[in-house]
Amino acid sequence: MGTLDWIAVDWGTSNVRAWGLDAAGAIVFATSSDQGMGKITREAYPDVLSGLVGGRSAGVEDVLICGMAGARQGWIEAPYLHTPTALSHLALGAVAPAPVGDLRPRILPGVCQAVDGREDVMRGEETQLLGLLALRPGFEGTVIMPGTHSKWVRIEAGRIVAFATAMTGELYDVLGTHSVLRHSLGGERNGPATEDGVAAGVSAGLERPAEVTSLLFRTRAAALLSGRGPDWCSGYLSGLLVGAEIGGQREWLGTGTVPLIGSARLGRVYADALARIGVASEIIDATDATLAGLKAARLQGTT
Amino acid sequence: MGTLDWIAVDWGTSNVRAWGLDAAGAIVFATSSDQGMGKITREAYPDVLSGLVGGRSAGVEDVLICGMAGARQGWIEAPYLHTPTALSHLALGAVAPAPVGDLRPRILPGVCQAVDGREDVMRGEETQLLGLLALRPGFEGTVIMPGTHSKWVRIEAGRIVAFATAMTGELYDVLGTHSVLRHSLGGERNGPATEDGVAAGVSAGLERPAEVTSLLFRTRAAALLSGRGPDWCSGYLSGLLVGAEIGGQREWLGTGTVPLIGSARLGRVYADALARIGVASEIIDATDATLAGLKAARLQGTT
Repeated sequence: MGTLDWIAVDWGTSNVRAWGLDAAGAIVFATSSDQGMGKITREAYPDVLSGLVGGRSAGVEDVLICGMAGARQGWIEAPYLHTPTALSHLALGAVAPAPVGDLRPRILPGVCQAVDGREDVMRGEETQLLGLLALRPGFEGTVIMPGTHSKWVRIEAGRIVAFATAMTGELYDVLGTHSVLRHSLGGERNGPATEDGVAAGVSAGLERPAEVTSLLFRTRAAALLSGRGPDWCSGYLSGLLVGAEIGGQREWLGTGTVPLIGSARLGRVYADALARIGVASEIIDATDATLAGLKAARLQGTT
Repeated sequence: MGTLDWIAVDWGTSNVRAWGLDAAGAIVFATSSDQGMGKITREAYPDVLSGLVGGRSAGVEDVLICGMAGARQGWIEAPYLHTPTALSHLALGAVAPAPVGDLRPRILPGVCQAVDGREDVMRGEETQLLGLLALRPGFEGTVIMPGTHSKWVRIEAGRIVAFATAMTGELYDVLGTHSVLRHSLGGERNGPATEDGVAAGVSAGLERPAEVTSLLFRTRAAALLSGRGPDWCSGYLSGLLVGAEIGGQREWLGTGTVPLIGSARLGRVYADALARIGVASEIIDATDATLAGLKAARLQGTT
């Protein structure tokens, strides 16, 4: 491991993570806190950054940040790049808040799709997509990024040409916590989900995505009528939302292998659902993609 | 107006309403309280009923109740009738809790669809459907009952043959209150919704119901990118959910006029959306249907 050369930061809504890297990209230190964009004021960013890297940043100037720090309600707004946008130019859109001691932070922009009826935004995922191109040079096709707000992204010739956001993860959370369906999930909404429930939900969603608002209520009816327990119901709800997300956007999928950028757990649910409709996929760890993207963006900044 | 003859009760989850009726069905008194099923214990029902009718029930025995009082967690369970079920036999499934003083209450059953993959339940709507058949004798076709949990019901030869529940109203509430979309609704989720927003949402939902989980996020993106205000966004979200409900279930709709049983406000949104796809509809007030159904059910009980 070499000498600390620069600092990479992923500033999300809920959390912030930082990595000290040497000139070859090896990790010298890694740290994180819960001081995400959603929890702090604009004025707090310098102190949170200082606190994160502690006394470990001596001699370092370069700090490259992706994610929600660049949102309008973040540290300083990094205006969206517009689709179609070349990922090789991402760092050109970076903005620089005032230095923090010796540190000179830059914040990467998000990407928007300002198309009437197809408006959409991302912040952070664009950096993971740049990372994907570093990890899988020349990739073209559709990428799925499962999560709270799942992104479906079409990449062509190194550009983001179109994308869509499905609220799958957030729907699961708000319905499981606040709707009548919570009674069927037994209060253990993060508990184990039986494979049977997931499979039933995925099938229903893939086959009838247009009826998803009705199929949702089946979670409740199946508990009342068929004696399905909280585990089955939780699995069904999760599987249904994933199935409907995929089933409703099948025209995005071609014959190529689909990269799934996300957690291993969620990636497997998507991979199984895609396999059912004959689509191959490959899970790529989200943190790996973020780090690869920040490294690639830093090289853009120095050329 | 004649002498008080019997009492009709609609016991919902949030509220309970009671009407004193004469032998010809005219209303002698009407009353209500917020002591719905969701707020009271099993033991509280007799006192709530007594309190509702106050000292006005002298000489009356007959109390006919529909709705959630018959749920498992209600006063006493009135087991579901199974589809296909003849509405002319609804009162045969009524159950009788212990008398309350001189009052002899009976609770009408709900209806279930115990079909694997299509499980569904209703309590209260079956009584409104019986009322519809009293108000529109011989009706056959699809009925839509807009609301928190919208019901789509197929009526043939006086029977409920199939139904489905779309969580449209509840999705609007939980997404507007608890999801990231709340930021775009500006905290005034019950505020005015511009016609433009409703129209844009209805169009999107009707045209692309299978993509509803993505189209939902457009509420947020349109606020960020296109400067849409809270009114537009609230209208879009509402219209999108109604449009997707209708668009995803178009095969239920034939050439006949669709009865819309619900509030006038919500009925108009559905009527406008249906008109766009060439389907005529007629709004029937939910309370009118409930009262007509309770009256019809009482006659079943006396034959």
